[in-house]
Amino acid sequence: MRDLAARPELLSLNTATVRERWGLQEIIEGCARHGIRAISPWRDQVAKTGLANVSKLIRTHGIGLSGYCRGGMFPAADAAGRERAREDNRRALDEALTLDAACLILVVGGLPPGSTDIAGARVQVEEGIAWLLEQARPAGMKLAIEPLHPMYAADRACVNTLAQANDMCDRLGDGVGVAVDVYHVWWDPALESEIARAGRAARLFAFHVCDWLVPTTDLLLDRGMMGDGVIDIPRIRGWVEAGGFKGHVEVEIFSAANWWKRDPDEVLRVCRERYATVC
Amino acid sequence: MRDLAARPELLSLNTATVRERWGLQEIIEGCARHGIRAISPWRDQVAKTGLANVSKLIRTHGIGLSGYCRGGMFPAADAAGRERAREDNRRALDEALTLDAACLILVVGGLPPGSTDIAGARVQVEEGIAWLLEQARPAGMKLAIEPLHPMYAADRACVNTLAQANDMCDRLGDGVGVAVDVYHVWWDPALESEIARAGRAARLFAFHVCDWLVPTTDLLLDRGMMGDGVIDIPRIRGWVEAGGFKGHVEVEIFSAANWWKRDPDEVLRVCRERYATVC
Repeated sequence: MRDLAARPELLSLNTATVRERWGLQEIIEGCARHGIRAISPWRDQVAKTGLANVSKLIRTHGIGLSGYCRGGMFPAADAAGRERAREDNRRALDEALTLDAACLILVVGGLPPGSTDIAGARVQVEEGIAWLLEQARPAGMKLAIEPLHPMYAADRACVNTLAQANDMCDRLGDGVGVAVDVYHVWWDPALESEIARAGRAARLFAFHVCDWLVPTTDLLLDRGMMGDGVIDIPRIRGWVEAGGFKGHVEVEIFSAANWWKRDPDEVLRVCRERYATVC
Repeated sequence: MRDLAARPELLSLNTATVRERWGLQEIIEGCARHGIRAISPWRDQVAKTGLANVSKLIRTHGIGLSGYCRGGMFPAADAAGRERAREDNRRALDEALTLDAACLILVVGGLPPGSTDIAGARVQVEEGIAWLLEQARPAGMKLAIEPLHPMYAADRACVNTLAQANDMCDRLGDGVGVAVDVYHVWWDPALESEIARAGRAARLFAFHVCDWLVPTTDLLLDRGMMGDGVIDIPRIRGWVEAGGFKGHVEVEIFSAANWWKRDPDEVLRVCRERYATVC
């Protein structure tokens, strides 16, 4: 396993972690100041700061993108909705290419409004990724399916286990892989074997960390700082690295009541410290 | 598939559904009044009303127990804690036998305080069930492992998929099976095949219904009435019945902000109606 304390350059900050108090320019400058060499920004933040401006800022500060958040949200109630989703994914792909991201993260989407057909939504997801892959593969941009925790199956992502993502990747072929976020998968009894399977297929494209708090008071915005919860992060990182993953350890914390309220400089300091000591 | 509208006797009420406003005696009398022929009561409610009294009440009103809630909570930080858990399970088993429950429901427990070892907790669970099974099997009481939604993995149950419960049952042998609660398993891509697997092993012991609301505002106490959410209940019931399940359809709704606040007579009326029309 890699010694993170000796490898500070492997830390990446998912920009949602400090988004409430800093714009993307401040985040990039803050990361440079704190010696964080990679980020994974969100599309709305990039749009607000301007794609060309962001592109220039990351070059100026020598900061790379461990991923780009995000494509996906494929299922829709009708063909027009699916077409709009595809156009939007095409734009996300172009932005990821412009910013030279390591991969485009896919949060695949849940049930269309009013639907109870989760199997149908999953078919729509796979068709949408297949379409996007036809654009992404020749352009050289990797697509990373992020299985989301089953509590998001209805409204955010109907891909909910690594086994399901692996099955999908097997059918879709080269150029598509997985993002392993410990928050979403830590509970999975099949996690070790499915990470190994993804490793054998060379499709471990991203690794995200935060922690599961006990109690968790909000389904979306109560993620914990690494070390404050119950996830055995080093164990999972060991499996991912045994599977050949050599990329960044990306910190992604949605925490409306705690970390989002704090001084972002403090948040970045704690991220760096916990990255080196508990991940 | 069974025609529920023509089979009102298959409806069971998990007594948590109206527990905020009625004691167990009122619940039993209410069920009798509404033509609900089965319940699944909770141990604390039984303790409050008195075991002998409950036993007499259900006989008087001709009401059966589709299950008894609950045994489990096996993992503990030390041997003394595990021993206390076993003694408590032994008492739960005795009560289930006294009340002639169809099965004893097992919510197996999560991580011991301070632990991040979910694999270890799962070993403790299996050891605990093996111990309880030695008492339950000769007494003729079925044990039903209820896989809980992964969002409860840390603090309530570290058995989180039907595949995991099936694997455990395979190792434990006769007398232990599963409780399928649509709320916990609806998202699982392997659900159909794992229900079929449980059916082949004749271990489908209980079937619970409610609905997953969008949005869900609380991890524990925001379950929906059948028909108000996104779960395709008839589809899952079809799989369970194709697997040979002939037992009750048990309604179990934890809903602090909505159904728990309403007049329990109204709740029972709506349960009966939705049971007959959307389950």
